[in-house]
Amino acid sequence: MSLVKSKTNTNRLRNARILIVEDNSDHLVLITKAIQQSFTGVESVMVTDEHAAINYLRECVQTGVRLPQLILLDLYLPERQNGWNLLKMIKSHTPEISQIPVVIFSNSDHHEDITESYDLGVTSYVVKPINYDEWVDYFQTLKDYWWETVSLPDSRSTY
Amino acid sequence: MSLVKSKTNTNRLRNARILIVEDNSDHLVLITKAIQQSFTGVESVMVTDEHAAINYLRECVQTGVRLPQLILLDLYLPERQNGWNLLKMIKSHTPEISQIPVVIFSNSDHHEDITESYDLGVTSYVVKPINYDEWVDYFQTLKDYWWETVSLPDSRSTY
Repeated sequence: MSLVKSKTNTNRLRNARILIVEDNSDHLVLITKAIQQSFTGVESVMVTDEHAAINYLRECVQTGVRLPQLILLDLYLPERQNGWNLLKMIKSHTPEISQIPVVIFSNSDHHEDITESYDLGVTSYVVKPINYDEWVDYFQTLKDYWWETVSLPDSRSTY
Repeated sequence: MSLVKSKTNTNRLRNARILIVEDNSDHLVLITKAIQQSFTGVESVMVTDEHAAINYLRECVQTGVRLPQLILLDLYLPERQNGWNLLKMIKSHTPEISQIPVVIFSNSDHHEDITESYDLGVTSYVVKPINYDEWVDYFQTLKDYWWETVSLPDSRSTY
């Protein structure tokens, strides 16, 4: 890994912002702790339902506040239809919102939940980890992939 | 990481198949070597243009051959319009093909190339690594994310 690349990554992480949509308070505690441990420097915005999520994204656009580069969406909020509705709203929005990668994370590993989510345009579907160490691994992988490897849609404006 | 999870991952990797669309023969050599080193067990299908790629995918469906779970697409084949045309064909196809995540990898880090690719439904956009070690890291990250963490659309039928 070259020095130049490492510098870029540091800059990327300094500007990392994730929107997390999760209605389960136990999971929110786990997620917050795991992010602090494995994803230092990321700013996480947490909301508990789909209306708050879409309102937050629209407000960012209206007020010029920097949008999150990644959205983590719990599918069952509390029904899967709530998660899918939000996914549809995001994917049918204007490009600055519709281009943000959405990762669904859910307790469900039902085939229909997975395939319907991909059909509606989710970037990837992750079954929620079971224990805390796996949550830490999960966020580490997320960071390695989305911030150390991928060029996100807003790569020019942020860095 | 639990034993159960490790077993699942081994099964996943045993069934891993990637379609690589790349017209640069030097890069194909690097990719093949890097995959052998960091992504043992994966079966990679390589084609050099968009027509061969879509024909391969259609043949899989028609003959019942297992589809790849991930498509790596070089954008400039040799023009970016070639890559985008293939992306459009994939994304407008029937679900078994349109749901396969497509990762664009390209030498270009131009903002327009990145945002237009996301607008056309690419899952993620990666600027090609510069040296061989970075290619190995790149495939390691790809494996960790897509095979160790994500549930891919075909997760029921393959495992």
